[in-house]
Amino acid sequence: MTKKEKAGEDKIIFNIDKEKNFSEWFTEIIKKAELADIRYNVKGFLVFQPWSVLAMEKMYKFIEKVLRRKGHKPYFFPTLIPEKNFKLEKEHVAGFEPEVFWVTHGGTTKLTEKLALRPTSETAFYQMFSLWIRSYKDLPFKTYQRANVFRYETKATRPFLRSREFYWIESHCAHTTLKDAEKQVKEDMETTKETLHDIFCLPFIFFERPQWDKFAGAEKTFAADVLNPDGKIVQQPSTHLLGQSFSKSFDVKFKDKDEKEKYCYLTCYGPAISRIFASVIIVHGDNKGLKFPWKIAPKQVVIVPIMQNKEVIKKAEEIKQKLEENNIDVEIDLTDRRPGEKFYFWEMKGVPLRIELGKKELKNKELTVYRRDINKKTTIKEKNLIEKIKKLAKDYDKNLIKKADSVFENRIENVDKKEDLKTALEAGKIVRCGFCSLNKKGESCAEIIEKEIKAKVRGKKLIKEKPLGKLNKCIICGKKANEVVYIAREY
Amino acid sequence: MTKKEKAGEDKIIFNIDKEKNFSEWFTEIIKKAELADIRYNVKGFLVFQPWSVLAMEKMYKFIEKVLRRKGHKPYFFPTLIPEKNFKLEKEHVAGFEPEVFWVTHGGTTKLTEKLALRPTSETAFYQMFSLWIRSYKDLPFKTYQRANVFRYETKATRPFLRSREFYWIESHCAHTTLKDAEKQVKEDMETTKETLHDIFCLPFIFFERPQWDKFAGAEKTFAADVLNPDGKIVQQPSTHLLGQSFSKSFDVKFKDKDEKEKYCYLTCYGPAISRIFASVIIVHGDNKGLKFPWKIAPKQVVIVPIMQNKEVIKKAEEIKQKLEENNIDVEIDLTDRRPGEKFYFWEMKGVPLRIELGKKELKNKELTVYRRDINKKTTIKEKNLIEKIKKLAKDYDKNLIKKADSVFENRIENVDKKEDLKTALEAGKIVRCGFCSLNKKGESCAEIIEKEIKAKVRGKKLIKEKPLGKLNKCIICGKKANEVVYIAREY
Repeated sequence: MTKKEKAGEDKIIFNIDKEKNFSEWFTEIIKKAELADIRYNVKGFLVFQPWSVLAMEKMYKFIEKVLRRKGHKPYFFPTLIPEKNFKLEKEHVAGFEPEVFWVTHGGTTKLTEKLALRPTSETAFYQMFSLWIRSYKDLPFKTYQRANVFRYETKATRPFLRSREFYWIESHCAHTTLKDAEKQVKEDMETTKETLHDIFCLPFIFFERPQWDKFAGAEKTFAADVLNPDGKIVQQPSTHLLGQSFSKSFDVKFKDKDEKEKYCYLTCYGPAISRIFASVIIVHGDNKGLKFPWKIAPKQVVIVPIMQNKEVIKKAEEIKQKLEENNIDVEIDLTDRRPGEKFYFWEMKGVPLRIELGKKELKNKELTVYRRDINKKTTIKEKNLIEKIKKLAKDYDKNLIKKADSVFENRIENVDKKEDLKTALEAGKIVRCGFCSLNKKGESCAEIIEKEIKAKVRGKKLIKEKPLGKLNKCIICGKKANEVVYIAREY
Repeated sequence: MTKKEKAGEDKIIFNIDKEKNFSEWFTEIIKKAELADIRYNVKGFLVFQPWSVLAMEKMYKFIEKVLRRKGHKPYFFPTLIPEKNFKLEKEHVAGFEPEVFWVTHGGTTKLTEKLALRPTSETAFYQMFSLWIRSYKDLPFKTYQRANVFRYETKATRPFLRSREFYWIESHCAHTTLKDAEKQVKEDMETTKETLHDIFCLPFIFFERPQWDKFAGAEKTFAADVLNPDGKIVQQPSTHLLGQSFSKSFDVKFKDKDEKEKYCYLTCYGPAISRIFASVIIVHGDNKGLKFPWKIAPKQVVIVPIMQNKEVIKKAEEIKQKLEENNIDVEIDLTDRRPGEKFYFWEMKGVPLRIELGKKELKNKELTVYRRDINKKTTIKEKNLIEKIKKLAKDYDKNLIKKADSVFENRIENVDKKEDLKTALEAGKIVRCGFCSLNKKGESCAEIIEKEIKAKVRGKKLIKEKPLGKLNKCIICGKKANEVVYIAREY
């Protein structure tokens, strides 16, 4: 290879150390893989490009499918919410008001009332619930909508992770009893597992958040925390036990079997597709670029003809068709780049499998298949194409999950001394420790953690862990620990 | 049947004369079939309910599939567009400014620049095109996005037909030559035929709009007009030849083969899903309610057990499963209503096929299948279930298209005297007549039609029709007709 060629190659190869230079890696892969263009001229707003839209559409499809199977019905609610709706729930308005974009004019006419660009839609849904729900027979009333929401973030924005407009699903449900509402919260967590973990291959822990860190207006908040390689946490789907606060504000009542009118118990659940997509990029990517889980890969297989003659191209088309008949998304790369360049390019783009097709393969009726996850080639008989590709895809996903799970598990570290907290966090760990209380009483200890150690108490696991042995004291105040909590940094 | 039962039945049966009382029919079916709730507390904004969302999602799927097959790539652009972008294209801003909702505040902070809630996204897309397009090799550059758009309508709003927020797809393309741009316009029209006509079973005529009725900023506008039973027109997808006006305003250039920098030719295309959905309701519905084209029916088959014993329910579940394995959307009605009530209900909801399942059917291993379009029952052998249902579905759609096409064709009437115009329009006709000119010169004649006859010149057909015989004079000014045009009323 000449020097010039080598220089060209360097430009082609995506090669950034993800663990060491995570921030640079993230910024560069978004640009290089054409996931999003940050040059749009409104701060904090992105243009999502095809490679991310194709994946996000698949993510929507899987989550919606699970929700529908569980009896949620799809709605489209207006993007605009009148100011007066927000004001009905005091805690909610206080939490969201600083983040609301306000529409004040239609054409040159000043509107009689300010309209919010929805930051979330509780106050839109529940006013309609009050019109729709009459009897216990209408319950549970399970809904969802696919929507984009808006928040005037004052913190630094980051593509996909924290934008001022993002894409999500929000699910709102009404129930007769607290018990049913609690069941729904569990179901939402199970939905998260079925999609985020089992399909998107993302490990997470669901925490019950401390009382001081709940969703504005909720009784309890549960959220799935995913870990970045720099040790920072990304909050993924959260589900909230709203109790009766909103149903009282919005008059969401039903006539029970005993003929008495009662307030509904409400729950809501919000998987943010564009942010989950960020975790997909971050958790699975490596120094060579992206690595998509099979089921949500924009293209699942790329066919690279080693020589571009008629015969090879014809065979490539034939294979493509066969794969597509089996609902596999395929691309044939017929650009005028050299095969090596094409390899690097599609590895960077994160396509799970690559089929190489040349003279040898044609002659032997074989295909060379490259696996992006283990960086290895294998040969399959052409006649076993579908069966083998399906098998490889399965192995690929299994390996992705296994690897991600193991990285995650190794990041959790028990700490019992305040002075060790910082070291552990700086080594990218999630700290497990004893803590005095997740109610109001513990808030001052949490504040110390935020201020001195720049980290947050994420909450406790759902299955009660007893603060035994070395974890029997609060890591901050040293008093008796009532909880085992997890502490981590976030953006 | 007792009097009381009869009264109950009346409440159950949807029975409004669609032809005679179209407006009432439309309002009532939206309420009765739970398509949308108009009681949301922002004027002109709707809550789309599951029955319409499920159909619209299918409509999205079909249109997106065709667009992707033709090489359009999906994007998500921001909902907000800075005021300065609008101001770059003079005609465009003049056309849209009165209809724009403006965001002026984020939290309590006044924004440094007003942001528009997109009424359409030319000014967002083309600023990015100028960053993305470099060479003739990048062209054609074919995009689309699924999005909701906002217009501060001053005319009366009507659910689905004209709302202040609606759901659509907008496709934007850049080309090297005018000829390629014109080809794209034709392709957009073909896409409209492949979806609106062939899948949604809607007849339409594509007109080239008069010069005075173009999209703000376009050189030429082509739009598909669909007819309502009251003789009024609903404008459906339009495609616009934008020429180089926007590419000059937004600096969308490419380096051609001859190494010269040239401005791109742009086109845009916008099927409004929620408005097309209105036409689906309106064109196919009858006095009994809705009638969904097979492929976009929220539920395609409803199974009504005549007796609800274990054996029947088991069989119903079995049939449901078989149909679902063949990608057919099925519902079993296990409510405690009487079978007759269920029949009326699902006919009103527009489900194409109903399977009735009772003792007799079970015994004979047969199924009674009711077709919503011809209001007739037929018996099929259970063992032929899938094959027969597929056949019935095909016949059903064919019949829907045929009927709609014939109604449409019978509505076109040649008129050669101004005094006959009103009569024809009031009889619900689309008038075909001679007209002086579709350029600036003809505008005064068009104004007379608007003012005196409350109708609009829709434009001319794409395949030039010669103004011969009685149509050789302009219907208004009596001068030599240069065009055959179509005149109709709209909302």
